[in-house]
Amino acid sequence: MRGKKKEETLRRLKTSVGHLRAVEQMVAEDRYCADILLQLAAVIASLKKISNIILENHLETCLRAAMRRGEDEEVIRELKTFLKFKI
Amino acid sequence: MRGKKKEETLRRLKTSVGHLRAVEQMVAEDRYCADILLQLAAVIASLKKISNIILENHLETCLRAAMRRGEDEEVIRELKTFLKFKI
Amino acid sequence: MRGKKKEETLRRLKTSVGHLRAVEQMVAEDRYCADILLQLAAVIASLKKISNIILENHLETCLRAAMRRGEDEEVIRELKTFLKFKI
Amino acid sequence: MRGKKKEETLRRLKTSVGHLRAVEQMVAEDRYCADILLQLAAVIASLKKISNIILENHLETCLRAAMRRGEDEEVIRELKTFLKFKI
Repeated sequence: MRGKKKEETLRRLKTSVGHLRAVEQMVAEDRYCADILLQLAAVIASLKKISNIILENHLETCLRAAMRRGEDEEVIRELKTFLKFKI
Repeated sequence: MRGKKKEETLRRLKTSVGHLRAVEQMVAEDRYCADILLQLAAVIASLKKISNIILENHLETCLRAAMRRGEDEEVIRELKTFLKFKI
Repeated sequence: MRGKKKEETLRRLKTSVGHLRAVEQMVAEDRYCADILLQLAAVIASLKKISNIILENHLETCLRAAMRRGEDEEVIRELKTFLKFKI
Repeated sequence: MRGKKKEETLRRLKTSVGHLRAVEQMVAEDRYCADILLQLAAVIASLKKISNIILENHLETCLRAAMRRGEDEEVIRELKTFLKFKI
């Protein structure tokens, strides 16, 4: 990733790391489980959003470039890997 | 959370924080996006597992205790919140 | 389920059955796979919505009644089954 | 879709239509909601499996052929649509 997309992704990841450490703190401090679960669900939603941003950027850059170089089989193999891991 | 369940949850959360910081590092170092996506998918899967552990423990402890105290409406309201946020 | 909720659920299920038979027809007629996939995704989204309606109604009726009868363990066992099957 | 893949997909879709009609019947007959929810979850899981089979076949046939014809932009646009609808 390059430029603004990379900056945005890094900023979102830093925020998620901070959020996840806050969840860890909540567990350490014996906070109410329902509140912990809601915060953890918010972290998971943020990470899915980040994954979508990276995947869309990947399609627009690396995979487009690979197709133009005629590396169709590599592209198909990678897309099948994404499918397998539900990315 | 108490005892072994709390320790296990904290250990898993610490591992996930470390894993997520490694993903951040991969983005900073311009690593290949497909590899980043696979690692991020692994973090998300781990967090879902942690969420299930906390939720099952919550059912077995807090929600069981609340039902025994006759706080049925509070339990139902909380379960509906979980449903809304797909927890 | 009773009354309006039952009627609404039956109406939505009938619509989904019709929609799914249309998907079957698209496959039989060799329609373009991307169009089939979009229609199948719409059916899955509708069924998840129906599942949420039934689950919310179940909480509000059967599970509330079971809690009032003091059948807390049965309620917890059932909620754990839902958790296991990601309902 | 062609040949064995098409037959398999049609057979699985027919089974899912039958299963979904059985769920409709359970609602009509006022069966216990938890049993209905478990059957509905099974139908949803089957449809996701069918969606994966069609998508993998689509990658292996139509999308590979489109890439070979140099229709890279069409392939990217379609993959982005799949991403948007979480296919």
